[in-house]
Amino acid sequence: MKKITAELIAIGSELLGPSKTDTNSLYVTKQLNKIGIEVGYKTVVGDHRDNLKNAFQTALSRTDIIISTGGLGPTEDDFTKDIIAELCGVKLKLNEEILKNLKDRFAKRGIEFPENSKKMALIPENATAIPNGPGAAPGIYIECRGKTIILLPGVPREMQFMVENFVIEKLNEKYKLPKKFSITMNFASIPEAVIDNTLKELPFNKHQIEYAILASLRKVQVILSGYNEKKVSDFSEKVISHFPEAFFGYGDIFLENAVLDLLTEKNKTVSFAESCTGGWLGKLITDIPGSSKAFLGGIVSYSNEAKINILKVPKETIEKFGAVSPQTAFFMANNVRKIFNSDFGVGITGVAGPSQSEKKPAGLVYIAACSNEKTIVKKYNFRGNRDMVRQQSTSRAFDLLRREFLK
Amino acid sequence: MKKITAELIAIGSELLGPSKTDTNSLYVTKQLNKIGIEVGYKTVVGDHRDNLKNAFQTALSRTDIIISTGGLGPTEDDFTKDIIAELCGVKLKLNEEILKNLKDRFAKRGIEFPENSKKMALIPENATAIPNGPGAAPGIYIECRGKTIILLPGVPREMQFMVENFVIEKLNEKYKLPKKFSITMNFASIPEAVIDNTLKELPFNKHQIEYAILASLRKVQVILSGYNEKKVSDFSEKVISHFPEAFFGYGDIFLENAVLDLLTEKNKTVSFAESCTGGWLGKLITDIPGSSKAFLGGIVSYSNEAKINILKVPKETIEKFGAVSPQTAFFMANNVRKIFNSDFGVGITGVAGPSQSEKKPAGLVYIAACSNEKTIVKKYNFRGNRDMVRQQSTSRAFDLLRREFLK
Repeated sequence: MKKITAELIAIGSELLGPSKTDTNSLYVTKQLNKIGIEVGYKTVVGDHRDNLKNAFQTALSRTDIIISTGGLGPTEDDFTKDIIAELCGVKLKLNEEILKNLKDRFAKRGIEFPENSKKMALIPENATAIPNGPGAAPGIYIECRGKTIILLPGVPREMQFMVENFVIEKLNEKYKLPKKFSITMNFASIPEAVIDNTLKELPFNKHQIEYAILASLRKVQVILSGYNEKKVSDFSEKVISHFPEAFFGYGDIFLENAVLDLLTEKNKTVSFAESCTGGWLGKLITDIPGSSKAFLGGIVSYSNEAKINILKVPKETIEKFGAVSPQTAFFMANNVRKIFNSDFGVGITGVAGPSQSEKKPAGLVYIAACSNEKTIVKKYNFRGNRDMVRQQSTSRAFDLLRREFLK
Repeated sequence: MKKITAELIAIGSELLGPSKTDTNSLYVTKQLNKIGIEVGYKTVVGDHRDNLKNAFQTALSRTDIIISTGGLGPTEDDFTKDIIAELCGVKLKLNEEILKNLKDRFAKRGIEFPENSKKMALIPENATAIPNGPGAAPGIYIECRGKTIILLPGVPREMQFMVENFVIEKLNEKYKLPKKFSITMNFASIPEAVIDNTLKELPFNKHQIEYAILASLRKVQVILSGYNEKKVSDFSEKVISHFPEAFFGYGDIFLENAVLDLLTEKNKTVSFAESCTGGWLGKLITDIPGSSKAFLGGIVSYSNEAKINILKVPKETIEKFGAVSPQTAFFMANNVRKIFNSDFGVGITGVAGPSQSEKKPAGLVYIAACSNEKTIVKKYNFRGNRDMVRQQSTSRAFDLLRREFLK
């Protein structure tokens, strides 16, 4: 089977500065990968005619499909369509239907049609205009020099609308690629290397199933793909059977989604007492709409006084064992549970760094989770900088609650 | 003056997948811009010999300076140096000094020197090896075909070390570019368009001063640059004089940094009562090391019971005006201040969405800030999705405290 590859061109001078990366390409790549097309190159180019022409010429010389994002608006520095017409040896023609649509669009909003917006209705001969659902400028689909060129707008929702409603179907039709199935699995509190080694040892046909592992401080994702749906599905179950405790769900979810779903399903509530994470645990669970069904609230006890006066951690405990201690974590979890009258409580206390002491190094974190029946306190030595220590603390806290109280 | 442009090539198949963008290029761009070099193209290419060669050939044909990141390690699919030697018509030679350094490095760690790591000591003839402070593989600097090619590792801290300690000086020396000065200013609670319009109307010489505006939900950054330090500095003062209230500091800082600095400077403390932001405000201030000097803690009152029982918002207030009301925000700020015995208190209550009601639409947020002398409550109607509403709530809360209590 011949491999079909694509080159993605992101157009916009702002993408060549020091602060903005092209993220449209991630979405396009994901959709292309699903239908078996791989990305061979990505190019970012500014709004300069010569450079833009160079980028398209280069892409035409080395890939089958070229998809650009950006450079389709009515402003002066948008001339992508001119360049494509030139490279394909065709002329730009005013498309009356598109012009009518554009004019209607402006009329509906009670805005006079600006003369320079007429440009948006220019389409290279032999090209197809791609309807733009949420926006004005249409996309362009054209086959020339044996290649496929697709011009999309840079605005993410307009670009995504066109990919979903036109591009994928059209490419599928033209290249008749077999449908690829993929399953994403999420694992927590397990090193990437352990999963990697197991996958390497599992017997499977590499021509039938491909896998990718994406690890972050929040989770390890395993993405399986292949053309035989049943084989991919069976293999995913085999993988999970090796790490049943670490597996927390399918798809693009995080631990807080899994925890919230389990809490909601069991009709249980939770509250948090946070020290070194400073409110991050609460921020994460409240990222999710509807979290108020299970999350009652929390106390950020960033000072010893707050731990003693508000969370009612005994003063002697802090004096004897320190604020960063299993004893303090124990009281934090249990007392926040009582204060909020929730089913479960979670407490986190640790040294986020960079400042630390010999006895309490940066990365030392105690996490406690409790119900009215039991409390589990765990000690962790996280690696990395302040942000990494705090990030890992939140993941492990959610996972402790999930593994010990919600399964 | 001839413009010198660079092409950045990011090497790594993982950068062509659906989940990882090249961010090394942002750092490199920032450093290059400082010395007056602009980036003309960015290319991402996988670990395939032919594609990699194509990428370098293309870059050689269209830019002055080529800087690659990645593809320098000892693994099989790293062959960047081979390709450069081929394109420059030179041979790779074993550099004994580098080999010795590598062997010493492994010996110090008590690890046997792996044979395939010898590859890292291969350097194209006529090339300079760039010392790698934190890592093993050296970078490569070579001039050929009238162009400059620089190969850097993909690991950010190794790459950054080389740029800081070698690349910038070397490029400065070769291209004798005049030093460019730049000043970054941060503004809050002001629309980007207002600043943009003012800048457009201010009289200044566009050949002497360039400006860029970068807006996010957290702040608006204005970056001025030019070759005459005094002119850039004078102009920055003029810009600030138009928005003295909105200006909160220079450099790469956020509002929480400005707030924490002001609190520390005045030896004052603060505590937060958060509803719709769920702990995010606390998370942000505790991102900063040393925040415990001024931040005592907070209460996340995500349920009405928590607002009534823990924050002591009068039940009648919530029944009469609702949880999302200026009255509730008032009590949240004042009571959290009393509970934590801090100098200032901040309260946030609002509808983050997507669920909403006719009377309380998504985006409606009340923020209160108080000392023991006064309380200020403000109403906001934020646009955007849940994440955007919450993000704007945190920025406006910090800014309310800054403007009304800390200036």
